[in-house]
Amino acid sequence: MDEFSIIAEFFAPLASDPAAFGLKDDAAAIPARPGFDTVITTDTITQGTDFFAHDPPAMVAQKALRVNLSDLAAKGAVPAFYFLNLVLPHGVTRDWLKSFTDGLARDQHQFGISLLGGDTSAGDLAAVSVTALGYVPTGTMLRRNGAKAGDSVYVTGTIGDSAGGLAIFKRENHALNEAQRDHLIARYRIPDPPVAFGAGLRGLASASVDVSDGLIADLGHLAAQVAITVDVEKVPRSDALRAFWGDEPAAIIRAITAGDDYQIAFTAQPQDESRIVAAAKAAGISVTAIGTVGAGQGVTVTHRGQILAIPKAGYRHF
Amino acid sequence: MDEFSIIAEFFAPLASDPAAFGLKDDAAAIPARPGFDTVITTDTITQGTDFFAHDPPAMVAQKALRVNLSDLAAKGAVPAFYFLNLVLPHGVTRDWLKSFTDGLARDQHQFGISLLGGDTSAGDLAAVSVTALGYVPTGTMLRRNGAKAGDSVYVTGTIGDSAGGLAIFKRENHALNEAQRDHLIARYRIPDPPVAFGAGLRGLASASVDVSDGLIADLGHLAAQVAITVDVEKVPRSDALRAFWGDEPAAIIRAITAGDDYQIAFTAQPQDESRIVAAAKAAGISVTAIGTVGAGQGVTVTHRGQILAIPKAGYRHF
Repeated sequence: MDEFSIIAEFFAPLASDPAAFGLKDDAAAIPARPGFDTVITTDTITQGTDFFAHDPPAMVAQKALRVNLSDLAAKGAVPAFYFLNLVLPHGVTRDWLKSFTDGLARDQHQFGISLLGGDTSAGDLAAVSVTALGYVPTGTMLRRNGAKAGDSVYVTGTIGDSAGGLAIFKRENHALNEAQRDHLIARYRIPDPPVAFGAGLRGLASASVDVSDGLIADLGHLAAQVAITVDVEKVPRSDALRAFWGDEPAAIIRAITAGDDYQIAFTAQPQDESRIVAAAKAAGISVTAIGTVGAGQGVTVTHRGQILAIPKAGYRHF
Repeated sequence: MDEFSIIAEFFAPLASDPAAFGLKDDAAAIPARPGFDTVITTDTITQGTDFFAHDPPAMVAQKALRVNLSDLAAKGAVPAFYFLNLVLPHGVTRDWLKSFTDGLARDQHQFGISLLGGDTSAGDLAAVSVTALGYVPTGTMLRRNGAKAGDSVYVTGTIGDSAGGLAIFKRENHALNEAQRDHLIARYRIPDPPVAFGAGLRGLASASVDVSDGLIADLGHLAAQVAITVDVEKVPRSDALRAFWGDEPAAIIRAITAGDDYQIAFTAQPQDESRIVAAAKAAGISVTAIGTVGAGQGVTVTHRGQILAIPKAGYRHF
């Protein structure tokens, strides 16, 4: 297989938008959308760090897309397009490419997005970069700064499932049933970001961030000019994770400093709570109030009124 | 160094456009430009294939940018922004990052572009993906299809210099003087795409393509519905390359099938030649007529009226 036949057979069918020119040109050309800002984010997943060689390629593809869709959702953007940079090991097989592009096709359908371009090169280890584009009405992208004293702090979905799945892969002892085990592993392999909820947050959230490096680390991005206090007992955790790690503060701290959650943490005025709950319900996801915003800066974690020491806020690459 | 301090110290100073939010948010937000299409292209360079571990990091940065600016130029687009995905070896040094970002800064200044975002992850080998954005008036992106029988075929700059530089690295025997040697190595390390010429091609070129995989291979992209005939003796080659490889047809074939040129090959009506020459002069580059377009399809290479057999049109990754 050469590069051109790989593009024609596996990737061109994913590029149906006219802006992509069927992947037959040097570039894509996206028409202007007056009244909208184009929101762009990019993230890479690498073999050995974010996925394993034995992971199903379809799931690797979905993870690469979804870690980016998570950022768009946290910014209030409706996703539209993506570009793909693939570093693939020499000798990649047709089966691998078939499964990988099947995963892309599934998520394109689910999230209403389309491939616009990319490139493929050869390396020792696989790496997948996605650059995702979405839209918000001009000037309405949700920002990390903007939280105000008196706001409530919310998080979508459940926290720590992906870290639980990774721990199972790393052979940590557990007594989970099959459904619990599968739930945690699935969340590690394929994030489930609240994409449909993002646009609903515009006009409600005062600040918003994608939870990817650990809840506490990412809340730190909202807390440069305000103080955020999180009550650990309110942090939403799945039944499977609670069965795995228990409910002691140390277990919850582990969950909130682990990363790979791909949920949204945001702040909003308390009087908007019913509108937030309605937006979450419309998007088919859950939202939980986990803390409050006050004067000061930084994130404090409490358990029954006592401040907990957090040894390490989140994941670091270097 | 953690990821956040690397961003703050080395990359945030490159992101001065308001759309980047100082790299302090999850995404960039680019205002709509009514009347313009956003042209987007993306390309990865990898250590061992496109650069070597001992290459100066500033040059690696410039190469990563320029292979993308080359695509934008070939499409008639004026470059504006870029995103960066870096896979860096564990233990990357401050000196490496300083040199790398110095290279980016130099090219940002030269080409009037600005960093909007990116990500950094750790891997065994370095890889640099750039996604570059530029603008053309609505509907005017130069396409690969569009060449008409009777058009002339042109190429910018000189062809084969980069391949010559790579051959020197691979210790091919030569009797070049220092200036010739340096010229070829410089073209391998840092492409010099005709960025300022791209916009001048709009309204003149009937079809246009970036020459990156080998002149003949890339001309093939223009020749799906027309026949292109190239006279090898007209292909512009530098004095340094001619001193290295000579002027025999085999040497020219080697140059036109090698790749990494980052020039523009395009077609245009013969009566526009004086306007093309004027546009090239204004951009400070050279343009050479190398062939003609006729009915049929595919690329034919001739030498003094005889058809030459081309063993392999260009570079393939797999």
